[in-house]
Order: sequence, then C-alpha cells, then structure tokens
Amino acid sequence: MKDWLDAYDERDWQTTTEGTVRYALLGLGWWTMDLALPAIENSKLGEVTTLVSSSTEKAQRLAEESDVDRGISYDEFHAGEASDAYDAVYIGTPNAYHLEYVETAVDLGKAVLCEKPMESTVERAEQMVDVAESGDAPLMIAYRMHTDPAVRRTKELIADGFIGDPVSVYGNNTQPLLEMIPDHDQWRLDPDISGYGTSVMDLGIYSLNTARFILDRDPVAVQSQMSSHHEAFADVPDERSGSVLVLEDDVKMVTTTSQNAHEDTQLKLTGTEGQIDLRPAFHGECTMHLARGELSATVSHDAFDSQREMREEFDYFADRVLTDGEIVADGRHGLQDMRIIRAVHEAAESGDVVEL
Amino acid sequence: MKDWLDAYDERDWQTTTEGTVRYALLGLGWWTMDLALPAIENSKLGEVTTLVSSSTEKAQRLAEESDVDRGISYDEFHAGEASDAYDAVYIGTPNAYHLEYVETAVDLGKAVLCEKPMESTVERAEQMVDVAESGDAPLMIAYRMHTDPAVRRTKELIADGFIGDPVSVYGNNTQPLLEMIPDHDQWRLDPDISGYGTSVMDLGIYSLNTARFILDRDPVAVQSQMSSHHEAFADVPDERSGSVLVLEDDVKMVTTTSQNAHEDTQLKLTGTEGQIDLRPAFHGECTMHLARGELSATVSHDAFDSQREMREEFDYFADRVLTDGEIVADGRHGLQDMRIIRAVHEAAESGDVVEL
Repeated sequence: MKDWLDAYDERDWQTTTEGTVRYALLGLGWWTMDLALPAIENSKLGEVTTLVSSSTEKAQRLAEESDVDRGISYDEFHAGEASDAYDAVYIGTPNAYHLEYVETAVDLGKAVLCEKPMESTVERAEQMVDVAESGDAPLMIAYRMHTDPAVRRTKELIADGFIGDPVSVYGNNTQPLLEMIPDHDQWRLDPDISGYGTSVMDLGIYSLNTARFILDRDPVAVQSQMSSHHEAFADVPDERSGSVLVLEDDVKMVTTTSQNAHEDTQLKLTGTEGQIDLRPAFHGECTMHLARGELSATVSHDAFDSQREMREEFDYFADRVLTDGEIVADGRHGLQDMRIIRAVHEAAESGDVVEL
Repeated sequence: MKDWLDAYDERDWQTTTEGTVRYALLGLGWWTMDLALPAIENSKLGEVTTLVSSSTEKAQRLAEESDVDRGISYDEFHAGEASDAYDAVYIGTPNAYHLEYVETAVDLGKAVLCEKPMESTVERAEQMVDVAESGDAPLMIAYRMHTDPAVRRTKELIADGFIGDPVSVYGNNTQPLLEMIPDHDQWRLDPDISGYGTSVMDLGIYSLNTARFILDRDPVAVQSQMSSHHEAFADVPDERSGSVLVLEDDVKMVTTTSQNAHEDTQLKLTGTEGQIDLRPAFHGECTMHLARGELSATVSHDAFDSQREMREEFDYFADRVLTDGEIVADGRHGLQDMRIIRAVHEAAESGDVVEL
C-alpha cells in the first residue's frame, strides 16, 4: 500500500525530462488565460512564447499583462508570422474554429494540442485527422482526465480485476452555464459554432471519453432522450439529456448531462465484484471511492485541481512531441467521440437504437 | 433547523395511536421471519397471531419458535381456518403467488398488505386490483421507502423548491444475488414465478417507485437495454439492465440494475438549483446528501435499518386500516409500477421508445 500511495501521482507516462516545447496559444478566453497559460508556466517541458487572438492589439495587451513575448492576430498566425518562436499550438477557441487553425499549424510544421470536442461535426473532425496525418503532424486532443492520477489508477485497478467484470457505468456532468457565463448569446448555445448541441458536446463528452479510456471499451449502441426548455437554449436540442449506451463486452452505461442544472460530476463503474466511484469526477479534485465486499476506501489528492490536470496534460503532450512518441488521445481517438456524440443526437431525434 | 431535525423522523402520516391490527403472515422466508415479524412485534399498532406456510407442520414449528399463537397451511388458510384470529394478511410469498392469497383474504373480509412487485404480470396485478376493489378490501403494496423519513423529507424539500425544477434522476440498485442466496434454481430467477425478469422486478422497482413517490411524477416513456450472461440467469432477460425514462414535466431519469453485481444503492435527484442524493438509498440507513450552490449537508438516521423501515410501514398500514383512511400505495399505485416494468422489458426487446 505504501508503494501504491507513493506512486499514486507518479508520471508513469513520462519518457523524457529534457527539452522545451514553445507554445502559441489560440483562443484567449478564461480557460486559456486562467488555466492553460499558468499550467504551461508551471510545467516542466513547456513555455508560452506567443498569444493569438482576434486582433493584434488584444493579443499584445494580453501578452504584456501575462509576461508573454508576443501577441499576434489570427490573420498574422495564418500568414506564418513569428512561427519560428513556437513549436506547437494549443487551440482553445470555440469548437467550429479548430480546423482552420490546425490546417495552418500543420502547414507551418507545428505540433497541435486541440481542445475537446475536437470540432463541431464528424466531417470536420475527419478533415482534421486527414490534415494532421497527411502533414505527419503530432495531433493530440486535450482530454486532461487521461493524465489525472485518479483516472490512471482507476484504469489500472479495473484492468487488474478489482471490480471483477464491469457491469455498468453511470456518468453525470451538469453545470449552471448561465450562472457561470451570464450571456444568452454565448457560443456554447450556438450550434453553428458548438456543433450538434451544447450539453453532450461540452459536458457529456467527459463521461463518455473517461469511461472509454478507463474501461478500454467503446460504445457500440446508444439510445437517448434530450430536450430544451429555457429560452437561451432555443437553438440547441440538449439543455438536458439522458442516454443509455452499450459498451463492448456488454457493459451498460447510463449518462445524464445538462448545462442548466446544479453542478455535479460523477463517474461510477460497477462490476461483479466491486465498484470504483469517481466523485467529484471531472473538474478537479477527482476522488476515488473504492468498494469491494465489505471493504471501502477513499483516495483523494488535493493538488489535482483543473490547472494541475492541465499541467500534466501539457507535459504529457510535450513528452510525446519531444520524443516523437505515440499519443494515446490522438485525432482518431477524438474522432470516435465525435461519432459517439453524433449518434447520441441521432438517437434522440429518431427514438431508435443507433449502432456504432 | 432544530425544529426540522426534531421532526425528522416524526410520523407525519399518523392519525391514530389506538387499536391493534392482528396479522397472518404468508410466505415464511427470511424476509418475513427475520424482518417483517420482528418489525410487527416492535410496532405500536400490530401483532402477529398466525403464520401460514406450505405445510401445517412447518407453520406450527415456526410459530412455536417465534412465540406466535398458531401456524396453519395455505390450504387451511384458503378454507378460512382461524380467520377470526387475524384482521389483516401480510403476503411475502414469491410474486406469482400473491393473487391467490389476496383473493382468499378479500373473501374472508381481511385487509391486505402485499409485497412489491404486487404480482408477476400486469394482468394478474389488474385482477388483484379488481378483487380488492369489488370486495371493498383495504389493499396496500409494501413500498417501505414511503415511510422512511429520508424519503419523506426529500419529497417535502423538493416540493418546497429546494432543488429548483427537477432536471434528472439517477437510480441504481445492484446486489450479488447468488452470493446472498447461493441457489441457481431460486424463484427470483424463474420467470414463471418472478414475472417479467429478475433485476428490474426485484431491484429496479426501488428506483422507479421511489422517484415516482418523491417527485410525484410518473414515467411517460422508456428506452432500455438488458441482457443475461451467467448460466443461472439463462431464463431471465435482465441479469443487467440500463434504461432511460422520461417522467412527467420532462425529467430525464436513468437507471441501472443488476442481480449479479457489487451491492450499491443510490437515488440522485438533480434540479436547476440543487441536488438531493440518497446514498445508500434502499436497504436501510437511507442517507440524504443535500447540495445547493456552495452549500452541502448530510443527514443520516442510524435507527432506520430495513426492519425499522418495515415497522413504520406496518404502523402506517395499521393506521389506515384502523381509521379506514386513504392508502397512498394502493393497488392502483402498485399496478402503475407493473405497467412501467413491463414497458422497460418491452422497450429492451423492441429497441423502441415505449410510451406509458
């Protein structure tokens, strides 16, 4: 047990401690500025040299405030300005703008870390995979749960048989979006920019992807119900949703998600012999609740807030870029989530079982 | 808060403290003998005078061991023997045998407390309702969660708006049946006796019914997935299941259940403003976890194990029988659960949305 606890937050994925990846950050919203930027600054293998935003002025102002070398506009980025100053781009823009920046980054010979969901539609995600593969560019989708130690240790425990055969999974991710960002016209509520909808694209993806990663099993069928009531959600179909999925090996998964509900995250994996419940699961402080027979244990690691999760993610990405190593959450991994999310929406619209 | 805590386990349903209902108990398995019998003995308004089993000898032996006046056989029960000695029957037999005992009990002018699910099929449940209504006999289905204080206080808090508008519900009830009762030929795995299946009939009913009771909203549509793998489950379709239901007012409900999984019970109700999570939920020690904004509270009441829940249930039933009062979980309430469970099975078989 001491060994296990000592190694709890060990970077079992790390293959190098040498080198630096210099980043350009695209999309300077609160997530990029308040979380991604400090995460890279605290990381071992990364540094931010360039900020990219809608105008040169805005980018330069934010660069100055954040002690970053330079700020450039998207147009300047597309023109290749200052491209000697960075090795990789982090794309934190709204979903439907990811592809164009990936195209330019690949043209410029850069590695890409792109936020999830990787794009707004399956077709655009497929294009992104094509672009990255034909340009031979490293492309990673930013699933930061993959480097959270609670998730990695859960994956190991389940592979070791701690819960027996997996039987069912419950995933929930809800938040009060309009309290967090009090704007009815925000991009997450605009399907032209967010994609198929808002709650499954932005929140449900955590349950779906983390279950896929932990269990190493993908959904093969889905049924779903979704609906919108609040006027701010008039253009998206999924203010709230509930789904049942069948994963490989017949694991039953149920999920709920809503952008207009009390904040709560939980991912519970139940097997024939035991259970691992991650709660909270997704937005930092991911905590493992283990149970088997009469025995239970809770393991938490206070340091892993969202920013620390991001730091691990950036160092994982840098490790792979610096060593030309295999990226687990590559474009094809992210594309599969896009197909699953599209299937969830198709299932809700048709009332049918949609197979994957 | 002091008033609320002082009144936490108050019997807000109680209308009389006078009188005694004398019971005959039918179906002398571990549930009846280890839980129902002591629950009545500890109750204020009940006493057990008669045990009924397959043979006179077995019934008499158990009566003697338990200090009950008399034991009779099912045949003797049907013949009306010793019917002056009891006012009500408690039916704890396997599901498909409930109806015949209700018929006799009503003929004999007795009140009936019948275990859930009320019968094996919708048709037989409908017959039971007809029999009770035409005989003008009090019939209650034994949903003991209705008199658990955590459930009653949750119902009040939600009616008072504590969670805002209800958005989603998650219910889980899993147990390792073959570890609890190591017999591959037990009646819960025989669809002729259990009904539509095993996990939804026996376990899922807790999530479904408790959500109905707390939210005062019934399911209007259901989609479901179920399957069986273990050889002991060859005759039932639902060793494991996952479902998504839409309740009135568009509340999304997801449920999982399995008779072959780690024991776990949870009923989580999430609204636009807050959440109430009952965990554990169903087999005693029901504990409320309240959350709203940044605030959270946990309320537990150690006394409420399954036997104490049963005691409350028996006194509620006796209160209604003694005062001729309205029974909330009457035959029609139980019949609705049977229709819901049938719909869950039909949905799994067809892959369609089944409307209720």
